[in-house]
Amino acid sequence: MGIFEVMESGVQTYARSFPVVFDKAQGAWLTDKNGKRYLDFLAGAGTLNYGHNHPALKEVLIDYIQADGITHGLDMHTSAKGAFLTALQDIILKPRGLDHVAQFTGPTGTNAVEAAMKLARKVTGRDNIVAFTNGFHGVSLGALAATGNQHHRGGAGTVLANVTRLPYDGYPGAGEDSLLLFETMLGDNSSGLDKPAAVLFEVVQGEGGLNVASMDWLKRLQSICRKHGILMIVDDIQAGCGRTGTFFSFEPAGIKPDIITLSKSLSGYGLPFALVLIRPDLDQWEPGEHNGTFRGNNHAFVTARRALEIFWQDDEFASAVRAKGELLTTRLQKLVDRHPTLFVKVKGRGMMQGIKCRDGDIADVITSKAFERGLVIETAGPDDEVVKCLCPLIISEQDLNQGLDWLAEAIEETAGERLGKAS
Amino acid sequence: MGIFEVMESGVQTYARSFPVVFDKAQGAWLTDKNGKRYLDFLAGAGTLNYGHNHPALKEVLIDYIQADGITHGLDMHTSAKGAFLTALQDIILKPRGLDHVAQFTGPTGTNAVEAAMKLARKVTGRDNIVAFTNGFHGVSLGALAATGNQHHRGGAGTVLANVTRLPYDGYPGAGEDSLLLFETMLGDNSSGLDKPAAVLFEVVQGEGGLNVASMDWLKRLQSICRKHGILMIVDDIQAGCGRTGTFFSFEPAGIKPDIITLSKSLSGYGLPFALVLIRPDLDQWEPGEHNGTFRGNNHAFVTARRALEIFWQDDEFASAVRAKGELLTTRLQKLVDRHPTLFVKVKGRGMMQGIKCRDGDIADVITSKAFERGLVIETAGPDDEVVKCLCPLIISEQDLNQGLDWLAEAIEETAGERLGKAS
Amino acid sequence: MGIFEVMESGVQTYARSFPVVFDKAQGAWLTDKNGKRYLDFLAGAGTLNYGHNHPALKEVLIDYIQADGITHGLDMHTSAKGAFLTALQDIILKPRGLDHVAQFTGPTGTNAVEAAMKLARKVTGRDNIVAFTNGFHGVSLGALAATGNQHHRGGAGTVLANVTRLPYDGYPGAGEDSLLLFETMLGDNSSGLDKPAAVLFEVVQGEGGLNVASMDWLKRLQSICRKHGILMIVDDIQAGCGRTGTFFSFEPAGIKPDIITLSKSLSGYGLPFALVLIRPDLDQWEPGEHNGTFRGNNHAFVTARRALEIFWQDDEFASAVRAKGELLTTRLQKLVDRHPTLFVKVKGRGMMQGIKCRDGDIADVITSKAFERGLVIETAGPDDEVVKCLCPLIISEQDLNQGLDWLAEAIEETAGERLGKAS
Amino acid sequence: MGIFEVMESGVQTYARSFPVVFDKAQGAWLTDKNGKRYLDFLAGAGTLNYGHNHPALKEVLIDYIQADGITHGLDMHTSAKGAFLTALQDIILKPRGLDHVAQFTGPTGTNAVEAAMKLARKVTGRDNIVAFTNGFHGVSLGALAATGNQHHRGGAGTVLANVTRLPYDGYPGAGEDSLLLFETMLGDNSSGLDKPAAVLFEVVQGEGGLNVASMDWLKRLQSICRKHGILMIVDDIQAGCGRTGTFFSFEPAGIKPDIITLSKSLSGYGLPFALVLIRPDLDQWEPGEHNGTFRGNNHAFVTARRALEIFWQDDEFASAVRAKGELLTTRLQKLVDRHPTLFVKVKGRGMMQGIKCRDGDIADVITSKAFERGLVIETAGPDDEVVKCLCPLIISEQDLNQGLDWLAEAIEETAGERLGKAS
Repeated sequence: MGIFEVMESGVQTYARSFPVVFDKAQGAWLTDKNGKRYLDFLAGAGTLNYGHNHPALKEVLIDYIQADGITHGLDMHTSAKGAFLTALQDIILKPRGLDHVAQFTGPTGTNAVEAAMKLARKVTGRDNIVAFTNGFHGVSLGALAATGNQHHRGGAGTVLANVTRLPYDGYPGAGEDSLLLFETMLGDNSSGLDKPAAVLFEVVQGEGGLNVASMDWLKRLQSICRKHGILMIVDDIQAGCGRTGTFFSFEPAGIKPDIITLSKSLSGYGLPFALVLIRPDLDQWEPGEHNGTFRGNNHAFVTARRALEIFWQDDEFASAVRAKGELLTTRLQKLVDRHPTLFVKVKGRGMMQGIKCRDGDIADVITSKAFERGLVIETAGPDDEVVKCLCPLIISEQDLNQGLDWLAEAIEETAGERLGKAS
Repeated sequence: MGIFEVMESGVQTYARSFPVVFDKAQGAWLTDKNGKRYLDFLAGAGTLNYGHNHPALKEVLIDYIQADGITHGLDMHTSAKGAFLTALQDIILKPRGLDHVAQFTGPTGTNAVEAAMKLARKVTGRDNIVAFTNGFHGVSLGALAATGNQHHRGGAGTVLANVTRLPYDGYPGAGEDSLLLFETMLGDNSSGLDKPAAVLFEVVQGEGGLNVASMDWLKRLQSICRKHGILMIVDDIQAGCGRTGTFFSFEPAGIKPDIITLSKSLSGYGLPFALVLIRPDLDQWEPGEHNGTFRGNNHAFVTARRALEIFWQDDEFASAVRAKGELLTTRLQKLVDRHPTLFVKVKGRGMMQGIKCRDGDIADVITSKAFERGLVIETAGPDDEVVKCLCPLIISEQDLNQGLDWLAEAIEETAGERLGKAS
Repeated sequence: MGIFEVMESGVQTYARSFPVVFDKAQGAWLTDKNGKRYLDFLAGAGTLNYGHNHPALKEVLIDYIQADGITHGLDMHTSAKGAFLTALQDIILKPRGLDHVAQFTGPTGTNAVEAAMKLARKVTGRDNIVAFTNGFHGVSLGALAATGNQHHRGGAGTVLANVTRLPYDGYPGAGEDSLLLFETMLGDNSSGLDKPAAVLFEVVQGEGGLNVASMDWLKRLQSICRKHGILMIVDDIQAGCGRTGTFFSFEPAGIKPDIITLSKSLSGYGLPFALVLIRPDLDQWEPGEHNGTFRGNNHAFVTARRALEIFWQDDEFASAVRAKGELLTTRLQKLVDRHPTLFVKVKGRGMMQGIKCRDGDIADVITSKAFERGLVIETAGPDDEVVKCLCPLIISEQDLNQGLDWLAEAIEETAGERLGKAS
Repeated sequence: MGIFEVMESGVQTYARSFPVVFDKAQGAWLTDKNGKRYLDFLAGAGTLNYGHNHPALKEVLIDYIQADGITHGLDMHTSAKGAFLTALQDIILKPRGLDHVAQFTGPTGTNAVEAAMKLARKVTGRDNIVAFTNGFHGVSLGALAATGNQHHRGGAGTVLANVTRLPYDGYPGAGEDSLLLFETMLGDNSSGLDKPAAVLFEVVQGEGGLNVASMDWLKRLQSICRKHGILMIVDDIQAGCGRTGTFFSFEPAGIKPDIITLSKSLSGYGLPFALVLIRPDLDQWEPGEHNGTFRGNNHAFVTARRALEIFWQDDEFASAVRAKGELLTTRLQKLVDRHPTLFVKVKGRGMMQGIKCRDGDIADVITSKAFERGLVIETAGPDDEVVKCLCPLIISEQDLNQGLDWLAEAIEETAGERLGKAS
């Protein structure tokens, strides 16, 4: 048995889908230890929007390390943190009319969500938080209560309390107006809905199956929240940092969340990093009330700052992402149209799209066949029934088409085999 | 206002004690942006056992980055992970007779604790976990339930359930035999103690004030746990990685915990990293049941492996740590003896020692005065009444004495001022 | 100040609406200590279906007391209990094709609900229970989690966990098919709905505002529950014992609940009494696992048995109830039709009907004016906006009309005053 | 099979120990349906302090029923309630210097405890409540969290949160000063003890095994509570109403609890009844915030008032109880002294005493043999190892001696058999 079989816990999961040992990576490509190359349509589950080991980020990171820049500084002030905060303010927040302050939590998305939930509860004095069907927010106990996935919820081993689940936009059974239930319950003294501190949601649900909230739904949700004094927390960990074609996924709706969580692609280089953006008047933390050893990863400050400077000073990068998103829609839609027995529809938005298969088995066969061709691609959704294209945003049009060609081949082969079986 | 005042959340805490902007660091020394140097007796709250930016680790890290080694790979197999696992097995586990498997969680200590608690609950089918007075295990909701600190507990904003608190070794009111209460309650059908899945504890309580569990207490706790089928989880996040003079803090007691959590100094370079070691038969996780984007930080794999190779192949480093620990005891004891009006006693073990002051104000004045002299040092304990020496383990004897000289000066000045006021 | 002002807690509530001292009662009539008579359209909130101090029940109760029959016997076998169980089996259960066993809990409805919830959780090994908007099930902590009313929930002072709230039949925002949401969530692995042990519901929601579940909804709910192995608990505490025109309120739907809770009118005489009916294979209690000092009130056994014998041996009483229910519908509908500015609609079923006013103030004025005329009548609903006729089922047609006349007068006066103000 | 076997849930428990059908009762004697008489040393688990069907109470109860006095009046003012409140004030509270107000809850002890816990949480704004090892407070979910018994806790089926368990006076492992742990934890910011709203305890633990709190412990507990602003709730449901020789069990300690729960013997006749006494400034309930259909059982008001008048106008009854308590001590001590291989010691106080056997089997054999002789007597304690004499307080000295003779015979027989087996 190899070292992984002997020494690594059975909790590992991606290693089961892609049973090779990866060694190096650059841009949209991974290389295994035997030198075989793979095109990456998984991108660290949305962590590598700028690709693997982007040369410009690599350069500043090596320079920083060479110069003995602070690596670990708890939450002390460092030059690297100051420079990142300045870039965040100048390049991202100010141009979007946001004056949020920044909290660096433990460098995981779930820790940022925990902090956001705590703060909302503290500020409002209310316990309950509304989350939505198919939402995914992490698996530490506080965040897990808001996560919908039973596989993860079942692992809690103890009570997951004080989260009320409501149907997401377009959820079957939610009625035509899927926020009417929420609105009615808020106005009903015996609805059983304890007035929530906040709503916590993704604008596009990544793990939940690429479900998209409409701009109208987002605006309406903001209006309900403001009317009732409920905070709005957008978990933009997967859909943010440009994935949908704007830095924040909610920009097209024109809403202003009270609290925003970011992580995944924020460092730009795949380094652990997480951030909570807080409306200034809500920043009512006591010093150290939420803490953690690795809050403020200085290596990540360095690469994150550089990524903002390179990609977000103007709209060039974002508009390229939107263009690639349209290409993706077109090609995925063709696949769906061609194989109605395999597929239900295209789902998602921007560079966060995929194909909903008729069941999880179909999706599994397709992604396996794609991997044989050299494409790393995964599934999402309650039954893992959505084949999810989450490629790096910096991918070239050529590579994007290459990946989609391989996907198309995998689909054709799958369709052929199923036809063979059926006949 | 500077960028930190404008843009950073009020949750920051260490930056309040050390209000400068740090820029570079090497070994036991920090340099601020004005070029002023500070001796570091905080060491990232125990994260920098091998000092800042250790040259040997820096070298392998830069080489790895230069060569485009995988930075982010979710939980996929990578060469870097394989090499780390091999080193962990060969250098640490096997020589200590341990056959635990490794789970890489989100790279924070609290996430490792969450995973350990979940697994213990899952495996035993029981909800309750016993934690101890003054224990600190992190602030995400699951771990926070086990953390004793009211400042952090108060921030939860919601229920912290299914943890029973028992008195730690030597806790006032626990009786001469501080495990007798636990033992009696376990054997009493109406004690109200729901049979626990596990006990979760630190061998030396870092944040709780450098309280030390005796070897007898540890052995007795293991024997109680085995008798009742209760798992023993050692949280070795702060006390592990050599801090007390052996790799694991529990080694002198000869116990074998079922589950061990490591983080902080594990990467050796201050990089976010966390690990749960699990007795093989307890590794009953479903794939992905506990997950997270940054589980398995490849940069950390690289430095962590190298750190094991450099420091733990033989006893040389560990014995040097123990020697420095004795020096520390001697010098701290002298300070306590000289100032009975300021101090209660020396607390802690190995390179994790400090002085318990008569109150938190004394400790605060002393650390402030020490910082004026160029010494970064913090307090711990329920009233922040323990001045805590947590210097890098690689510190030279000269630097260690330098720091203790500054500390002694700060104490003399404090004693003098208080005498002045009193007269 | 009188004794009540000095000595009774401010928690009292009905005494505020009806600020007199009641002394005696017979049938549908109460008499205060000054000899003034009041017609009772409240009937102990549904506890006095057979009226106050029914002569036949009074007779057997006095005989029993005279003869020194066991008053208090914990849960020991007594002649009175045996006779009641026999009557329950012969008169109620067998003719309805039910083979449930009987658990006598502490003599309050909430205690019966607590027992039902516990048993469902124990038998299924699941924590979660589904309750519905506007449901009312009691205010001890377990039952309170299932109760929708915020006034009561707010009094909990601690976490109310492991109940999922779903929209009741016809609830605004629930969509045309108000069970589709439940069904979808049950079939969705990341809906966030933890598979429930049971659904707990009223067939007509008493305190929640006389909301009526349709027979189709009940059948569909049963079919969903059976498909997914979820227990169905009917809380028939207020709607049962004939209130809707059949002994159990669910009889017209032809469903067979797994667990049924009864209390209120079960003793027939207003004596504290509560009962859980359990499908035999679900009776997996350990001896004494749910206990209580007053489980099995022997005085109540005596009157309850006699009540079953008198009222439920044939359909005569029930059909009279249904006829009175129709009279009630007719007269209430006339009032609604006449005052569209005051009223929305008639709500409820059988002898459990009322008028939904446009707001709670209207309802409050009307019931106050009715009380001036000698009618004891209360409100229900989330804003206390439903004037609720809950008169004894044994009320004569003459008394029923008398009460409705007084109610009509109160309404006319209210309408007149509001017209006056408006002009 | 008889009706009980067919129709009653397996949850029944006392019926298993005493497998006969009881029919009538008077004073200290029960009669089964075959006319066999049994002396009652169980007394409804403390509910029948004045014996079964006391003639004076019976008389007023029958008169009241005959006259059509209000039976069920929700929480409305009634003449019967007024008279009871007056007697409670004049006979019990005023002479003891108490000015508490009265809340009538659902007529079960557990409901009174739920109300007390809610109120303490509401008034203080804190969630946590301290309860003690071996405490028993009922089995509805809120009270169950405070109950120590695993058999009952295991039946919860869901989380029991926000109760901290501390060792009761004299509990093994609690140290010489069993309140020092509590006091230390309260003063320690990282003890992990969330500051409690209240302590909830019995002065003599009935179900927990007749553990007695010393007067010093009670005084010290009161002083700790007052110092820290923690409410003191005495659950006097079993030990109150004269059981220990004073009306309230805590009187000899001179403490004044903030909240007191009463039930069991309060009605005097075995009727369901429960009461919470509240320090007036703590009576911060909103109207109806804690409610229930049977709060205020008017039959119980009638008998309870009469019981106060008969037994508590002067010290005659109480001093007789104390004298019988001493007789009990003397005779039980003799039995313990005679059988050191069977018994550990006499436990309890006043007319709430028993013998701790070396194990539960011994206690079980003894009570079975006693029942064969005509003595109804039960066990208590974590292993049912305490044979518990809980006879009616009105028992004649002759009957008391008769019962103790039978108990002594049962013990001799048990001792003989065990000797036989051993030889």
